[in-house]
Amino acid sequence: MEFEKYLKSKAAYVEKSLAEYIDGLAGAPEILKDAMNYSLSAGGKRVRPVLVMAAAEAFGKKYSDVTAAACAFEMVHTYSLIHDDLPSMDNDALRRGKPTNHKVFGEDTALLAGDALLTYAFEVFARNGDVKAVGPARTLRALAVFANGAGAQGMVGGQTADVFAEGLTVNNLKRVKKIKSESKTLARKNIKYFLVPETIKEINAETVLSYIHANKTGALIRTAIEAGAVLAGAAEQDIENMRRYGTAMGLAFQIVDDILDVTVSEKKLGKSGSDAANKKLTFVSLYGLETSRKYAKFVIEEAVAALNCVRGLNKKAAAPLYDMADFFLKRSM
Amino acid sequence: MEFEKYLKSKAAYVEKSLAEYIDGLAGAPEILKDAMNYSLSAGGKRVRPVLVMAAAEAFGKKYSDVTAAACAFEMVHTYSLIHDDLPSMDNDALRRGKPTNHKVFGEDTALLAGDALLTYAFEVFARNGDVKAVGPARTLRALAVFANGAGAQGMVGGQTADVFAEGLTVNNLKRVKKIKSESKTLARKNIKYFLVPETIKEINAETVLSYIHANKTGALIRTAIEAGAVLAGAAEQDIENMRRYGTAMGLAFQIVDDILDVTVSEKKLGKSGSDAANKKLTFVSLYGLETSRKYAKFVIEEAVAALNCVRGLNKKAAAPLYDMADFFLKRSM
Repeated sequence: MEFEKYLKSKAAYVEKSLAEYIDGLAGAPEILKDAMNYSLSAGGKRVRPVLVMAAAEAFGKKYSDVTAAACAFEMVHTYSLIHDDLPSMDNDALRRGKPTNHKVFGEDTALLAGDALLTYAFEVFARNGDVKAVGPARTLRALAVFANGAGAQGMVGGQTADVFAEGLTVNNLKRVKKIKSESKTLARKNIKYFLVPETIKEINAETVLSYIHANKTGALIRTAIEAGAVLAGAAEQDIENMRRYGTAMGLAFQIVDDILDVTVSEKKLGKSGSDAANKKLTFVSLYGLETSRKYAKFVIEEAVAALNCVRGLNKKAAAPLYDMADFFLKRSM
Repeated sequence: MEFEKYLKSKAAYVEKSLAEYIDGLAGAPEILKDAMNYSLSAGGKRVRPVLVMAAAEAFGKKYSDVTAAACAFEMVHTYSLIHDDLPSMDNDALRRGKPTNHKVFGEDTALLAGDALLTYAFEVFARNGDVKAVGPARTLRALAVFANGAGAQGMVGGQTADVFAEGLTVNNLKRVKKIKSESKTLARKNIKYFLVPETIKEINAETVLSYIHANKTGALIRTAIEAGAVLAGAAEQDIENMRRYGTAMGLAFQIVDDILDVTVSEKKLGKSGSDAANKKLTFVSLYGLETSRKYAKFVIEEAVAALNCVRGLNKKAAAPLYDMADFFLKRSM
């Protein structure tokens, strides 16, 4: 109850700040600002920015000290949804109960609104360097963590593998074969291995799903937490354990998402077309509902264990981090 | 002759560095790395990174001190080409004489490769903070300049207006009317004004073209020069004059591009479909070839005048900046 109030008040603060950042785009085409704002103001729990703020608070900083960085995470999350909904990707018509960005603004403007949000995220993030309690050195380091979580080694990497996950089917393997022959820059023997990082030695549904989930959703959750700790000036060992907490939280978030996708009705989720209808590789499709729930519980326990290892935590101020773990778990049940 | 050697050697250095950055993406899907690399290694004069390096050298820094920032500019330029070529944008099949990214990798992967390049650009840029001669504070400031030039108030803003430039026609006005009624967040009376920034008070072909060109291509050229000066620790007044130089250079670059589009054959440009065929609003279509050439000359003179005002320039080390202005002008004749 206490935590729900915390979550709501922080989400409201993030929404107010996001609106101010968009207002600040003087000299940008009105139609572009409108398209950016359309998706940015469409709601959601604002989990990523709240995690940035909660992590910074846990190390004794004020949540307002990391406003810019927190909002940057929400901008990147939002751009990823806009691009993900495009016809060449998931081709979704509804998102949070509203027409998707390209349905309202057209594919070109939706593409550009996504690009603009991603770019603006970094400009806004950089402003956190002006906050005295944070400074440019920590901001730059946290920005690199953020970019890494959002990019080829994080979210975009996960999305790419997701696109090709059905890629273990004949049609997509044909497509990859064609790409390989046309791009002429790769000489791998096994086509399957082209779809995922070299670091995955054994390719099967389990390893691919694990990679996708750790990155597609997990990486941004993990780096939101890590960035919050870095901005707050946490000690190296503490940042390491916050990363452990973040990794577990990211994984838990995705398992819960997969569970909700089959247990909650379309209307409540506010999006059309379930993962099952799209034949997506999910925890539930792979392991079943019961095992997925057990797995979620196990992962949340790991998150809490990691948090218990962080020495520099202000225990009272860290309560929202524990509550958030609990909140994720309850949603899965 | 001397300058052409400078340009080639710096371009080769940039290409080697870019390849190393892509190699560094351990843990990213191979297919994504390949798609990123396909467009990144497709050639081009590497004007933007060379300008970052030349600007830093002009203030007494080594070009290698700003390698990361320079390469980041090329990554953003490359992502913009990938997204610009997509079917929902210009729908181009050829770029620099090769099939466009989506023709080889598919629309989804091309979209993601663009997103990944844009994101990686900021991660790489942040690494410039580790260079002792630069440091985190200057890097963060330069990164904000970079993001601003690449985003809604710069390149993406210009691209948006470009998409709607034919928008002063009946069909696109209908589309905008539809967007306005569906998005419900704007209450402007005049639909035309929705397409461009509020800051443009008088909308006609000239003002719209001027906005598009200052931003679509100009902003990244301008900010490459400004970022180089900021990274090198130039004085405020000098940064201001470098920005003036950069603004003129950006404009000149685009005028020259418009001229070349009509004077050079398709084969030599290595891309299909000219601006004329697409009925694009260009300097040449608006003012004719002769006036465009005169305008290019005038703008280059302004660039040189601005450069002459920069007090902290090391005159010998600044030679490439003067040569670059000359190089732009010669291409237009």
